[in-house]
Amino acid sequence: MIHSSTSIMKPQDYAALYKNNLLNSVIPFWMEHSRDDASGGYFTCLDTTGNVYDTDKFMWLQCRQIWCFAMLYNRVGKKQEWLDFALHGANFVLEHGRDAGGNFYFSLDRAGNPLVQPYNIFSDCFATMAFGQLYLATKNELYADVARNTFYNILDRAENTKGIYNKSYPGTRPLLSFSLPMILCNLVTEIETLLPADLYQQTIAHGIDTVMNRFYQPDLGLIVEHIQPDGTRSNSFEGRLINPGHGIEAMWFIMDLAEKQQDKTLIQKAVDITIATLEYAWDEKHEGIFYFLDQKGSPPQQLEWDQKLWWVHIESMISLAKGYAHTNDQRCWQWFEKLHAYTWKHFVDEENGEWFGYLNRKGEILLPLKGGKWKGCFHVPRGLYQLWQTMEKINAK
Amino acid sequence: MIHSSTSIMKPQDYAALYKNNLLNSVIPFWMEHSRDDASGGYFTCLDTTGNVYDTDKFMWLQCRQIWCFAMLYNRVGKKQEWLDFALHGANFVLEHGRDAGGNFYFSLDRAGNPLVQPYNIFSDCFATMAFGQLYLATKNELYADVARNTFYNILDRAENTKGIYNKSYPGTRPLLSFSLPMILCNLVTEIETLLPADLYQQTIAHGIDTVMNRFYQPDLGLIVEHIQPDGTRSNSFEGRLINPGHGIEAMWFIMDLAEKQQDKTLIQKAVDITIATLEYAWDEKHEGIFYFLDQKGSPPQQLEWDQKLWWVHIESMISLAKGYAHTNDQRCWQWFEKLHAYTWKHFVDEENGEWFGYLNRKGEILLPLKGGKWKGCFHVPRGLYQLWQTMEKINAK
Repeated sequence: MIHSSTSIMKPQDYAALYKNNLLNSVIPFWMEHSRDDASGGYFTCLDTTGNVYDTDKFMWLQCRQIWCFAMLYNRVGKKQEWLDFALHGANFVLEHGRDAGGNFYFSLDRAGNPLVQPYNIFSDCFATMAFGQLYLATKNELYADVARNTFYNILDRAENTKGIYNKSYPGTRPLLSFSLPMILCNLVTEIETLLPADLYQQTIAHGIDTVMNRFYQPDLGLIVEHIQPDGTRSNSFEGRLINPGHGIEAMWFIMDLAEKQQDKTLIQKAVDITIATLEYAWDEKHEGIFYFLDQKGSPPQQLEWDQKLWWVHIESMISLAKGYAHTNDQRCWQWFEKLHAYTWKHFVDEENGEWFGYLNRKGEILLPLKGGKWKGCFHVPRGLYQLWQTMEKINAK
Repeated sequence: MIHSSTSIMKPQDYAALYKNNLLNSVIPFWMEHSRDDASGGYFTCLDTTGNVYDTDKFMWLQCRQIWCFAMLYNRVGKKQEWLDFALHGANFVLEHGRDAGGNFYFSLDRAGNPLVQPYNIFSDCFATMAFGQLYLATKNELYADVARNTFYNILDRAENTKGIYNKSYPGTRPLLSFSLPMILCNLVTEIETLLPADLYQQTIAHGIDTVMNRFYQPDLGLIVEHIQPDGTRSNSFEGRLINPGHGIEAMWFIMDLAEKQQDKTLIQKAVDITIATLEYAWDEKHEGIFYFLDQKGSPPQQLEWDQKLWWVHIESMISLAKGYAHTNDQRCWQWFEKLHAYTWKHFVDEENGEWFGYLNRKGEILLPLKGGKWKGCFHVPRGLYQLWQTMEKINAK
């Protein structure tokens, strides 16, 4: 750590800390350990020190890592090794990642043979982001085509994202999910130049309205994961589910969209939801943010409900930092310092690089890994980049 | 508790304790709290004191509860209230539980409308058990037909149990699962009188061979959950998975089958696997049996891997008690006492009835429930009955 825990850190200190962790710990970890030279693509199942413990290739994580290195190239600096590293993944994904209909498989084996069918539309979402960033980096029209075609395919599948793999019986309990309208806002922002202006505007407007007026529940002060088509809550496991990290993460997406529209009321609403969600989901006994909660206080079905996950914490730090940068709301800064202290103490591995991902309720390491089936090169580097930039903005004010 | 923890308990003490817990705590809990008089069937989502916190009806748990009460009627005593309670569930399941092809849905809403399609063949397995026991109790041929037809339907689906909901890409990594051949042995035992003798014999012979010669790995001393069709292990998350409770549970099924065949060698092998699995999966730091482990010591994909589950512990107690009854192997008794002490201390709720189901690694209650989506009226009453009977056998020797 740059500063001991007793000294008070200022925005410029945080900026330096996050930049250093990103460029000298996290990115080197993935460049050193995740490249599969023999078969292409990336290994993502990496233990504490970076040893590969499984070689399957998950499309979420392949695409997120491509996006990450292309984003660094586009926004941090034109390092050829970053672009090459993104292209290394992209070549593998383009060769093996899709079925004949252009849908992205969920996973492949090391060599690129499909293992799990394209049942999960977020594979396609992350592919859109990956090839959108790669197009910005290279101006290669092939990547633009993949990003655009994948995006339109997502829109075609939006009504029933799991397609033939959907196990819900039609009609009994139709629930809308918060995930898709939110991520569509991200996607159109990522590939704005590839889309008609009205589609971009409509998607953003619909996304903001859906998240802030439908999934957000004023009486709770919280965002729920699923609602009924008429906008009411469903008294079911899915309907009662609160995923605090997911709701808070969405608030910095909303702040970014509101900033473009210069909508200060919307920014303040996103700040208020962030704070309310943290107050609701903070573990007063052992610190950290719970992974899942039941809105009525009943037992959630997720056995991992009380665990502390890396992405929940870093995404919350981003919402707090951005909220503070926009509004100067002191609640944001106080919560930010609390989150930073917890996160830096428990998740960051300064010795071996990258962050641990999964802690038990008490903050002890639950799985000694830096990557797996769901944790790859994404939330940590994206978050560190966002925090570094936001802290520099606060410092410059 | 009947005995303080310092006194040494004898088989007759355990028999009395288990009988009392079954008949005066567990069964009354379900009879009092789980009956849905308005819509039929059972509530299974019950909190610590028995309040209903969710009203969905899961076919696994509906059928398991029917089986349980029919089994009590058949084996413990001809109490009309037990049979009526089984029939109460059976009427609901027969009216609402199946699609037009006779496949059992995974779940229904409270009123009986299908929620989740029949993707999970264990719904059908537990239905076979339920209606098999109910036929034994009533001699009603309707129940015999349901049990038999469902069993043959399971055989038809055995090659691809998830059918159209199977997300695995065909051919890349074909894995065989340990669950089905084992449960088929149970099913043919439950409905032996309804099946041709040769089908019964073949299923048993195939199940024993599959479990003990193919899924059992002599170099590890353990049973793995999945193998490749050629019998070798797969170096993948699924291939490396050890589910200690599942392997140990299978050993008392094997002992019961071996007892009928008077095969002492097979019984001893089942005892040895039970002990080896416990030595492998026992948590030396916090006691209890881990839920999931990776055979190579890598991080498992299941975030709940270190939790302590009720069914793992009571099923292990049954294998140890039966192993001791058959072989007099002192390792069984020593492990049994250790398991009993842990289980009685952590899972049993003598104040409110029934058992808690989910503990964290340290043995603290993770979810304050007696039933949910996966825990119903099954492992605890079946286990207590088996333990009571086995302890009486040991005592009579």
